[in-house]
Amino acid sequence: MENVEKQIEGLKAQIQAVDKKTTESKLSMIVFSGDLDKVLASFVIATGAVAMGMDVVMFFTFWGTPVLRKKGGKASGKDFMSKMFGAMLPEGTSAVKLSKMNMGGMGTAMMKSLMKKKNVASLEQMLEMAAELGVRIFICEMSMDLMGFKREEIIDYPDLTYCGVAKFLEEAQNSRIQLFI
Amino acid sequence: MENVEKQIEGLKAQIQAVDKKTTESKLSMIVFSGDLDKVLASFVIATGAVAMGMDVVMFFTFWGTPVLRKKGGKASGKDFMSKMFGAMLPEGTSAVKLSKMNMGGMGTAMMKSLMKKKNVASLEQMLEMAAELGVRIFICEMSMDLMGFKREEIIDYPDLTYCGVAKFLEEAQNSRIQLFI
Amino acid sequence: MENVEKQIEGLKAQIQAVDKKTTESKLSMIVFSGDLDKVLASFVIATGAVAMGMDVVMFFTFWGTPVLRKKGGKASGKDFMSKMFGAMLPEGTSAVKLSKMNMGGMGTAMMKSLMKKKNVASLEQMLEMAAELGVRIFICEMSMDLMGFKREEIIDYPDLTYCGVAKFLEEAQNSRIQLFI
Repeated sequence: MENVEKQIEGLKAQIQAVDKKTTESKLSMIVFSGDLDKVLASFVIATGAVAMGMDVVMFFTFWGTPVLRKKGGKASGKDFMSKMFGAMLPEGTSAVKLSKMNMGGMGTAMMKSLMKKKNVASLEQMLEMAAELGVRIFICEMSMDLMGFKREEIIDYPDLTYCGVAKFLEEAQNSRIQLFI
Repeated sequence: MENVEKQIEGLKAQIQAVDKKTTESKLSMIVFSGDLDKVLASFVIATGAVAMGMDVVMFFTFWGTPVLRKKGGKASGKDFMSKMFGAMLPEGTSAVKLSKMNMGGMGTAMMKSLMKKKNVASLEQMLEMAAELGVRIFICEMSMDLMGFKREEIIDYPDLTYCGVAKFLEEAQNSRIQLFI
Repeated sequence: MENVEKQIEGLKAQIQAVDKKTTESKLSMIVFSGDLDKVLASFVIATGAVAMGMDVVMFFTFWGTPVLRKKGGKASGKDFMSKMFGAMLPEGTSAVKLSKMNMGGMGTAMMKSLMKKKNVASLEQMLEMAAELGVRIFICEMSMDLMGFKREEIIDYPDLTYCGVAKFLEEAQNSRIQLFI
């Protein structure tokens, strides 16, 4: 009889373990885009999810990578291609543009002034909020390498990891929500 | 002995509850894009999923918002910026354009005529089908506010809710499939 | 007593079955985009996931469809529209362009030479790798029909299926990760 009780206890623990997996409240996002509107959307989702108690991971890759550069950040020892990419891609959150209706920068400026007026946080403020709330940021090493970015050019962020796609997939596999943005 | 039987019954119920969670057949989509091709894809997925017995939620945000405007819908009391956005963004499903090969509208017109010829439902028909099948539509309040859209400008749809990102995430958390389009 | 033991065994099996569902390691991707950068990202994710032991399904639709055309592939009996689409859309992996900074092809050429230099596999190599690793490819029949592509124009790939959205959703429903690219 005692044996049966023990087995039942064991089963209960197993059920709880499985249940935890189904409710594990993690969100993983791939931020592939470097457009103001999409990056903004990714931070609205990220900060909203953390506020709801979810664990959030953002994986910045390709066009998303330059968004995390410091303004005026410099790095030595760059080859010609890296310098060209460095010059052509937006330098951090403040240089990011709308995907549509940019109109030579006018549309982007309009959107930013509108956001201010309507009390929508700017990308800079969103990033700060994300840092405070504990959103984890991953940066794709392959993208850094391809675009010739050096780590000293990237912003200071409390929870920032350089990694490959495998590390992201590991997180995504245990997430309830995954998005490619 | 009776006690053990009861406990086993309890475990069975728990396992069923966990199992239900893993199979809950819900699909949540963020429709961020306002391009004809992408919005079309989102409705093909949405109606396909409902037809398979899934519960479907579409969350329209940013460029996706104007797609749900009424044609010729008017609203009073708009400021200058809102009027400008109103004029520049597509007015409903019939004004939406291809993301590529639009070619001054020719590509979009070609695609629409092709769809008709090949018996692919138009965006207007898709929306009607979605309404009939019970696809739930959420509209992002922040986008409405940013773009200066008023509720009287939005189409009549049976199951339409204005909400924030938190409400969407709640749905997404309990969904088997989540997509950002 | 024997009865109880049997019931406990039954419960264990049920728990394992539910657990398997929560950990079923499948990834489903919709490759909607036909841009070099995005298609590349989708293959990096796909091959990375298979290498981790996941089962991977890629569903090519809309602009993603022409990426899978053979170079110089011909098909007879095409109408005017199909011929036009055929001529305007990229003919396979080698003709695919960057979504940004294409600059009349220069940006795309630069990116390709960079990838070679940095030992990042090209799209052609990725496709080969995907085939070897057992990534399953689905092609959207509606897109094939809309764009007027014939099956003889599509590349030879070991595990290739023509299907509709329902078949994809079936796979997605049993996947841990789903992405729309």
